[in-house]
Amino acid sequence: MKKFFIAMAALCIGLGASAQQALFGDGPVQSPVINADGTVTFRFQAPKAIKVEVTGDFMPVQKREVEFNGNKMTVEIPGVGELKEGKGGVWEYTTPFAVAPDMYNYTFRVDGVSQIDPHNMWVNRDVASLTSVLLVPAAGERSDLYAIHKVPHGTVSKVWYHSAAAGFDRRLTVYTPAGYETSKAKYPVLYVLHGVGGDEDAWVTQGRATQILDNLIARGEAKPMIVVFTNGNIACEAAPLENADGYVNPTMRLPKTMEGSFESAFPEVVKFIDSRYRTLARKQGRAICGLSMGGFHTLYITLNNPDMFNYSGMFSAAIGTGSEAKAAHPEIYQDVDKKLATYFSKKPALLWIGIGKTDFLIQSNNEFREKLNAAGYPYKYMETDGGHIWKNWRIYLSEFVPLLFK
Amino acid sequence: MKKFFIAMAALCIGLGASAQQALFGDGPVQSPVINADGTVTFRFQAPKAIKVEVTGDFMPVQKREVEFNGNKMTVEIPGVGELKEGKGGVWEYTTPFAVAPDMYNYTFRVDGVSQIDPHNMWVNRDVASLTSVLLVPAAGERSDLYAIHKVPHGTVSKVWYHSAAAGFDRRLTVYTPAGYETSKAKYPVLYVLHGVGGDEDAWVTQGRATQILDNLIARGEAKPMIVVFTNGNIACEAAPLENADGYVNPTMRLPKTMEGSFESAFPEVVKFIDSRYRTLARKQGRAICGLSMGGFHTLYITLNNPDMFNYSGMFSAAIGTGSEAKAAHPEIYQDVDKKLATYFSKKPALLWIGIGKTDFLIQSNNEFREKLNAAGYPYKYMETDGGHIWKNWRIYLSEFVPLLFK
Repeated sequence: MKKFFIAMAALCIGLGASAQQALFGDGPVQSPVINADGTVTFRFQAPKAIKVEVTGDFMPVQKREVEFNGNKMTVEIPGVGELKEGKGGVWEYTTPFAVAPDMYNYTFRVDGVSQIDPHNMWVNRDVASLTSVLLVPAAGERSDLYAIHKVPHGTVSKVWYHSAAAGFDRRLTVYTPAGYETSKAKYPVLYVLHGVGGDEDAWVTQGRATQILDNLIARGEAKPMIVVFTNGNIACEAAPLENADGYVNPTMRLPKTMEGSFESAFPEVVKFIDSRYRTLARKQGRAICGLSMGGFHTLYITLNNPDMFNYSGMFSAAIGTGSEAKAAHPEIYQDVDKKLATYFSKKPALLWIGIGKTDFLIQSNNEFREKLNAAGYPYKYMETDGGHIWKNWRIYLSEFVPLLFK
Repeated sequence: MKKFFIAMAALCIGLGASAQQALFGDGPVQSPVINADGTVTFRFQAPKAIKVEVTGDFMPVQKREVEFNGNKMTVEIPGVGELKEGKGGVWEYTTPFAVAPDMYNYTFRVDGVSQIDPHNMWVNRDVASLTSVLLVPAAGERSDLYAIHKVPHGTVSKVWYHSAAAGFDRRLTVYTPAGYETSKAKYPVLYVLHGVGGDEDAWVTQGRATQILDNLIARGEAKPMIVVFTNGNIACEAAPLENADGYVNPTMRLPKTMEGSFESAFPEVVKFIDSRYRTLARKQGRAICGLSMGGFHTLYITLNNPDMFNYSGMFSAAIGTGSEAKAAHPEIYQDVDKKLATYFSKKPALLWIGIGKTDFLIQSNNEFREKLNAAGYPYKYMETDGGHIWKNWRIYLSEFVPLLFK
């Protein structure tokens, strides 16, 4: 047995985080820790640091005025918790409140420099920033939808299609629900679009969309459906680090995001999905939704293809931003009133609008809803606390999905 | 236009790494930077730090004696580069040598505490440690296989199967080559197994296996094949953070890794794949390989199923470790000589063995090869520089794959 343990030790040394492959190891610091009273403790080891702070969307927000091009606007930013140094240079902060069940992002700031939590393996990328993830699940709470349970799991695939509009292959994330592969049935399809900083991975990593789908379907609260996550920038093959651009840090690549290229090319995605998967290839079997820029995309894709989608969801939609001003495809943004009339004349099953009370886009969304109200067009509306944040987008998805394909 | 720019600014603020969602932003520090002369510069911002170092497998290795249970063994660890502080608290280190084209992991150590590179979005998890990734590609070099090129890409899927042996659903990564979905042909299957610290994601993230496959197939140097990456610990549903265990940091869970459970249950994986995919469901259409523990698994799965695989690859295989001593399924490890005789009597197309000159497992691999030599059993052998590291395992995979299904 001694020989066995030596060999196993050698294996561990050889294969683990140390020795031959090996990089600096982590200490025994535990962070984050959800305490019995619901508070959360964050720890960061930095023996020589002067100041260590933590921030994340679990902290109460603070209003801050920012200025851009001489115009002032108010945004909300999460508060900051200051860690206190303890033994061994381990800094610690415990929230003075129970953190509500939800999924959060957080980072440390060490002497002014942003750091993720080195003791937390759960890391998401938000555009060009890495953030640590804190999930506080609780049975009976919505955040329980964001956790992985022992339920049948769908298949999550990274799939490439040829975009004639782009002139190259582009990457999609496709969710097929549990049972799809062994069924002969045709399935409805939901298309889910990201914001200006996102990509075809964003809804799966930050949005927990595939967990939400698995869980809603397992509970019988949503129909089994195929879900397609596109990349909303037609100039891109794929998410950063997943394309042939090589070793570049991601930036928000605006050139081809809100000027009509993506919307005008969208039918080729639907055509590809209908050719590749067993779909209900008609309006009654199709839904689309998106957050922020993706809500803007959703609106214009829907209006320009009034026979394509029976269900459309605009989450914190970036409408009224004036983006159409530089349209490469002006036809996409023209004759909105006429297109709205045509769209509603075809009696879509659902137009769903969700936005946060403090979202900087709420005014333009209110103006859009007033237009719908004035014309007597039907829609469902949800207003939540908070602003332009993933917390809200996960809520909207989990509210929208159960309404589909009934 | 002014209104447009204000709106876009609001979107950026709202959706990016700052403001409403918003966490501490990153500065303009660039790291890592591959310089024109092939050296690489690493930067880390830490205004109050006393000492900042970088290490990674691009550094020349140093030998170190380690002790475990009173036994001494020599391991190789990468050297350390010391950063110098410059303007704005930005520390910097440039390698005194051109870094050879390859894929590397690295981390910083700030006053003794391990940190990834906050300016590099490319992060891999190695068991319980996050490491930053540096890819130095170069046309004509092997590392060019690890880069993403504008070639047809296979589909990479996370797929769950029901394990009767485990009693629950388990997760696989499945690569289907470009063209699979639109073809009616049957495809051969390669099963690829990870080491004791890994999981069904490891070969895809650290091993760059799907890039290697895409590129070798696009060059015509490998046959199109389905590739299945299993999770080698039958006690686990899935990789850390991908299973119902919830919010736990990964550890090396040894209990059911090298005691026969995985090997004895392996035929159910093959059965599942043959039922789900269009496979050449016979020995001539099957290959298996694995690194370290996965090489050990490969050997015993092959020997216990002599009609199942025509090609077997042992990469730095953890044979001779005495793990069989605590077998839950002793039959897996019994009668090896007899099983070897049976296996070779059926004339498999290829047994392939690869190991590094300084791998701590080379002695047991040499002993195994001597046994094969003595019996006159044929095999192919590759010996590389270096030890028990991903650099070698990527080489072995890229050497093994072109030999399959010819």
